[in-house]
Amino acid sequence: MRVPGFRAAAAAAGIKTPGRLDLGLVVADRPAVAAGVFTRNRVKAAPVLLDTARLQARAEARAILVNSGNANACTGPGGLADAEESCRLVAAATGVPADEVLVASTGVIGWPLPMDRIRQAIPELARGLSEDGLEAVSRAILTTDTAAKTAARALSLGGRDVTVAGMAKGAGMIGPDLGPPHATMLAFLFTDAPVEAPWWQAVLAAAAGTTFNRILVDGDTSTNDTVLALASGAAGGPPIGPGRPGAAELEAAVTGVCAELARRICLDGEGATKLVRVAVTGAPDDAAAERIARVVAASPLVKTACFGEDPNWGRVAAAAGRAGVPFDPGDLAIGIGGVEVVAGGRPTGLEAEERARAAMRGREFAVELRVGTGPGRAEILTTDLSVDYVRINADYRS
Amino acid sequence: MRVPGFRAAAAAAGIKTPGRLDLGLVVADRPAVAAGVFTRNRVKAAPVLLDTARLQARAEARAILVNSGNANACTGPGGLADAEESCRLVAAATGVPADEVLVASTGVIGWPLPMDRIRQAIPELARGLSEDGLEAVSRAILTTDTAAKTAARALSLGGRDVTVAGMAKGAGMIGPDLGPPHATMLAFLFTDAPVEAPWWQAVLAAAAGTTFNRILVDGDTSTNDTVLALASGAAGGPPIGPGRPGAAELEAAVTGVCAELARRICLDGEGATKLVRVAVTGAPDDAAAERIARVVAASPLVKTACFGEDPNWGRVAAAAGRAGVPFDPGDLAIGIGGVEVVAGGRPTGLEAEERARAAMRGREFAVELRVGTGPGRAEILTTDLSVDYVRINADYRS
Repeated sequence: MRVPGFRAAAAAAGIKTPGRLDLGLVVADRPAVAAGVFTRNRVKAAPVLLDTARLQARAEARAILVNSGNANACTGPGGLADAEESCRLVAAATGVPADEVLVASTGVIGWPLPMDRIRQAIPELARGLSEDGLEAVSRAILTTDTAAKTAARALSLGGRDVTVAGMAKGAGMIGPDLGPPHATMLAFLFTDAPVEAPWWQAVLAAAAGTTFNRILVDGDTSTNDTVLALASGAAGGPPIGPGRPGAAELEAAVTGVCAELARRICLDGEGATKLVRVAVTGAPDDAAAERIARVVAASPLVKTACFGEDPNWGRVAAAAGRAGVPFDPGDLAIGIGGVEVVAGGRPTGLEAEERARAAMRGREFAVELRVGTGPGRAEILTTDLSVDYVRINADYRS
Repeated sequence: MRVPGFRAAAAAAGIKTPGRLDLGLVVADRPAVAAGVFTRNRVKAAPVLLDTARLQARAEARAILVNSGNANACTGPGGLADAEESCRLVAAATGVPADEVLVASTGVIGWPLPMDRIRQAIPELARGLSEDGLEAVSRAILTTDTAAKTAARALSLGGRDVTVAGMAKGAGMIGPDLGPPHATMLAFLFTDAPVEAPWWQAVLAAAAGTTFNRILVDGDTSTNDTVLALASGAAGGPPIGPGRPGAAELEAAVTGVCAELARRICLDGEGATKLVRVAVTGAPDDAAAERIARVVAASPLVKTACFGEDPNWGRVAAAAGRAGVPFDPGDLAIGIGGVEVVAGGRPTGLEAEERARAAMRGREFAVELRVGTGPGRAEILTTDLSVDYVRINADYRS
């Protein structure tokens, strides 16, 4: 994964388990147009506060410093000071202005960043910057994730080859509520396309809204959710903006990378053994459909039934019924794994249930609800709730 | 548990596991004043629809027939017909009017009631009615519960001895949202006190609002939640109503019985190893405090931390922050097991955490949040999320 205009490096700074990569630095060769969407949780980590302020002041960045193992959340003024010092350390080691450095953190809440280790590691990171470094950063941001998550698209815009590449981490506290500017996942996108700043922010916000904001592992929204997108312009050509040549293609590529990363966060959700697409149609409007889809996707009883490979549509119906959306239970249709198990509010029979059960043995399946004849529709990607989810979160201090 | 004016019996009708009690009948010697609160889920089981209609027509009842093992939910017009036939069977066997029989069901959704077994069992139930039968009924209503739940209060009203007794079942799909007329728990209260019907309904609705509606095991609201309260008047004396002698005492007894049953539902929540009182103070108003308390109480990450006996206040702070209630994170205080682990938005130190960890080893502890200086406060009783919760619900078709 290389994107012209960006160099990167990662180190094992000792913030997380000794010997594991936990600090990553990405530096743009020249000022990059920057967009960001962040958690709407009332309790925001220091890096979220810092990045939000920086991007409001100027939609431009030269670097991103990211650590795993420590969230720098609920750390008060000292946490903000640590985030600011991290930026100055990057500036000193790389020569970029400190106020053009963005930061992101993930890990345990409430502990001060181990600044001594960060101070020690940054010069080493700066020396190690290379065009091949993004892959190492994608590993440095992981916590309970079992694998790195990257995605890329190559496209041609006006005859110029352009790359859109991204990386993300999950794998718990996943119920993103990314504001405009929206995202406990972290995701970083890089492109060498030239872009106009307001359009770039709008593209990222729209893409996050239909991808990262539509996944749900445990429904817990993090204090640290952050999606950043940097465009170096190194591919050359005129800046891409609303209605300009290439705008639709570039937006599709960004959305495609976000969708692939979001899906991989879900696939690698804590303890997850299933990827479940909850799709609602026939609601009064899209917002009502989304409310139903979220309640079904977050229901512990639906999620444990998915883990148990049990086409327990009664739990799906009960969850839909408590979403606060009016519908006639006599109109309800439910499909599991492509098999209609409920029609007109009534079960279609044991044979259908057995086929649904067989479909649930796969790694991926859909739970589809039709609640009426309205135009509203929505989809949420979710996971099952497994014995391992409980073990991971009863043992791990996250 | 005896309440003058009521006789009861239970049978193993073969609706649930063969040989286990699964059908209960309570009959009042003369018309009893009846109150009910029911699930606000859009998908309502047939017995909920039937009882709601009956109590709207007349606040009076002579009998309650309750089964476990089958919810009679999502069973369409046939389910309603089965519920009505059950009432007629009770009427034929006991001589009470069919339209004064109430019904309640809990168990698997979507299967027709096994009417042949119910037809066979009801005459036997009628023959077995006795003043000592309530205890057997309290066992017949159980599903994944590990123990029967009963509570009683004896009081003296105007020189007359009065009993308020109740029974309840949990233990999953517990996130009651009981409407006015509010309640997957089932609970039945019986008293020999004489009461006025509108006041009795108001007393039950108020008691349910502060007890059953304040517990949460998995947050899934059932299609079948039902609380019924029958007052036989057998103790004699003038009907108790608003402002009358004894009203406050009787209301306190009803609330006390509901609170004890609600607490026991939580203690016996599916897989639960902890009873956790989530208390929020300092919110703008009580409704805001309740929103925060509910999100914290339902958070999978908070619940797994409780199971792991980990005073992971970061998860508590993150859950509070996503409840949609504005507060200043710098004002946040969090207590766990009576130990203040966060004050002014910052951790109070490792020593406090260790004391909180020790308190979490107990069966019961509190998670307390102070989010500001407002007058709003609320409490929710909840459970931890254990490995066994997942096992029970991945294996059990409920």
